[in-house]
Amino acid sequence: MASTFKSFGYGEIQTPTFETLELFTAKSGDSIIDEIYAFSDKGNRELALRPELTAPVIRFYVEKMQMEPKPLKLFYFGNCFRYDRPQKGRYREFWQAGCEIVGTNTPEAYAELVAMAYTILKNVGLKNIQLNIGNLNIINSTFTKLGLSKDGQKKLLPLIDKSQFDDVFSLLSDLGITNDSTKEFIDILQTSDINKIKKFIQEDASAMDELSNLEKILDLLKSSFNVKDFQIKMSIVRGLDYYKGLVFEIDAPVLGAEKQLCGGGAYELVTLFGGRETPTAGFAVGFDRTILALEIEKFAFPSLKTDVYIIPVSEEMIGKSIEIAQNLRKEGILTDLDLLRRGIGKSLKYANSKNAEKVIIIGPKELENDSVTLRDMKAGDQEVVKIADIVSKLKNN
Amino acid sequence: MASTFKSFGYGEIQTPTFETLELFTAKSGDSIIDEIYAFSDKGNRELALRPELTAPVIRFYVEKMQMEPKPLKLFYFGNCFRYDRPQKGRYREFWQAGCEIVGTNTPEAYAELVAMAYTILKNVGLKNIQLNIGNLNIINSTFTKLGLSKDGQKKLLPLIDKSQFDDVFSLLSDLGITNDSTKEFIDILQTSDINKIKKFIQEDASAMDELSNLEKILDLLKSSFNVKDFQIKMSIVRGLDYYKGLVFEIDAPVLGAEKQLCGGGAYELVTLFGGRETPTAGFAVGFDRTILALEIEKFAFPSLKTDVYIIPVSEEMIGKSIEIAQNLRKEGILTDLDLLRRGIGKSLKYANSKNAEKVIIIGPKELENDSVTLRDMKAGDQEVVKIADIVSKLKNN
Repeated sequence: MASTFKSFGYGEIQTPTFETLELFTAKSGDSIIDEIYAFSDKGNRELALRPELTAPVIRFYVEKMQMEPKPLKLFYFGNCFRYDRPQKGRYREFWQAGCEIVGTNTPEAYAELVAMAYTILKNVGLKNIQLNIGNLNIINSTFTKLGLSKDGQKKLLPLIDKSQFDDVFSLLSDLGITNDSTKEFIDILQTSDINKIKKFIQEDASAMDELSNLEKILDLLKSSFNVKDFQIKMSIVRGLDYYKGLVFEIDAPVLGAEKQLCGGGAYELVTLFGGRETPTAGFAVGFDRTILALEIEKFAFPSLKTDVYIIPVSEEMIGKSIEIAQNLRKEGILTDLDLLRRGIGKSLKYANSKNAEKVIIIGPKELENDSVTLRDMKAGDQEVVKIADIVSKLKNN
Repeated sequence: MASTFKSFGYGEIQTPTFETLELFTAKSGDSIIDEIYAFSDKGNRELALRPELTAPVIRFYVEKMQMEPKPLKLFYFGNCFRYDRPQKGRYREFWQAGCEIVGTNTPEAYAELVAMAYTILKNVGLKNIQLNIGNLNIINSTFTKLGLSKDGQKKLLPLIDKSQFDDVFSLLSDLGITNDSTKEFIDILQTSDINKIKKFIQEDASAMDELSNLEKILDLLKSSFNVKDFQIKMSIVRGLDYYKGLVFEIDAPVLGAEKQLCGGGAYELVTLFGGRETPTAGFAVGFDRTILALEIEKFAFPSLKTDVYIIPVSEEMIGKSIEIAQNLRKEGILTDLDLLRRGIGKSLKYANSKNAEKVIIIGPKELENDSVTLRDMKAGDQEVVKIADIVSKLKNN
């Protein structure tokens, strides 16, 4: 993940594990306290283990980085905390990889952001992911067109978020919206045809601008970033107060109900934290859930390995064995050595448990000829090798 | 640091950021609560942000890893927390790199541990470090010989720890120890002559065994690990309840009074946490202080760099520019691209601020010939290059 971020010109940022509780309530409202590990320190400061990393990164930007050349591209890999019942792929301490880009809102900047999120998940080895792209300004325009009150919107959002379109229909009927308008609205929430959306919002000039920008983003994604398998999904409405404009999610369908791996979009926090207004966007990838999806896809995780395990056959051989081990380590060869003075049989078993590829057995007879026994653990065969030739033997294998 | 640990056959372990408070008071006594970020969670559990990583690693070993083949070699790189006034190189959230080895107490195991700590600090680029090695069983034997009460020892230890030998002299006089014995004892604390120590403890068979083991460790360090610049320092007494036998410290003299970078030794925690008795040893390196020492030694830290920065000269060039950027990224080339539609002058300035080595300028005239302008930012010269040749041009530079 880090190397993909870097390949797009992002630099790593690390922020503290805890922040003032106020930072997170300012961003997400007081209700977040229920989900947070909050505590008072010995100086009676109200602190919180960070539940996410966007607020800390933007706080840091406002305090220390406003004068940096724009756009500023920052990525992070950090642990976060949530007071919640642990479930599969959802832990009280969990890891997020993510990024923020500060100072640009061009279609190419947003297309790059979405493409990078997609590329990160492809590069870690996931075979089956689904990218969905929406826009909150356009959704807001449809609300206005329907004449929905703020209160009505509040009731509607969770239903849209969970794609409970039957309930959306009942609620809008209850709110006095005509059946025709409601049907058309629900169609917009589910369509991938941008022209249908265009028709619905055509009287709202600002929403039409937003849609035209969205088309540019999608066009760059397809034709320049070569990311073709995405869906338009206007029903992405999470965090309506926080996100502005572009929103996107990436799912791993193998995960079933809890399938979202990544969420992001354009948002506004800088002025809330006292900084000069500037566009911001970003995304976060749930690391633990990504690992879970890879496991279900039977991804071959690399196992710990030992290049060479060295067995001195007697106490007298230990000094020379260490010397040889040290020379191998200097060459970047991962080398372990019997530290329990066990017999050869037990040591070979231990070497096997550590996935050693080769074993070097050091005994007095071979040592007289400046030689050792080199054993290939996979093939099971062994040969006597001059000490001076060990490194080249190992490197040519 | 991680690659040095791995070269010695260590595997990485990660443990949670917080543990039960009891874990740390069991190890270090109730007084540690004053220095800890402790809090109650919403379920009224007493928790603590970890102040160090040995107790968490050994807890994990006892709970989950007792059946693993021995020796078990575990390293970590983790953040820790201490409620304390922040000072230079001493922060409330700080990082430690360290390791534990479980299941062996042979001289070669201990020599390897000390050599690895030394090698880690040398490998990160420190020029000037000082390795000191002591032994708490031997120090305990000298206390017994002096006839010191537990109470007397308690008063003595902080004085020894701070090398306040005049105060040691006064205290021992007050405690009724003869001047001759006191002088000899202070000499032992400061000597690097192992024979003097041997003479002082010769009637204590168990301490003599320990000394003979220490001699084997020092001999392996010198002759097999090629670590020669260490000092015997019997005045290392920190954590007398916790450490057993071998103890060692590595200092960076450039840091002045707060110079200790690394501390470690053999210790006993497994049975305290309910596990079956087995030898354990380890060390921790203070990461922040190591960085500080490197800064004082004027170490050349690698700066963030961008291999290539791409400038489309007009909006029409953006799509093609992204395509070229994507091809470079696939080749592992760190590539950034103008996302603000600035002029060439401003974009070159930005590229410079991101340490870009090359800039590619994409304009309509060159593009007609499937070419771009490739600029070397150091030399300041530029040439027109076929798009198909960019990668080979960049890789051969």
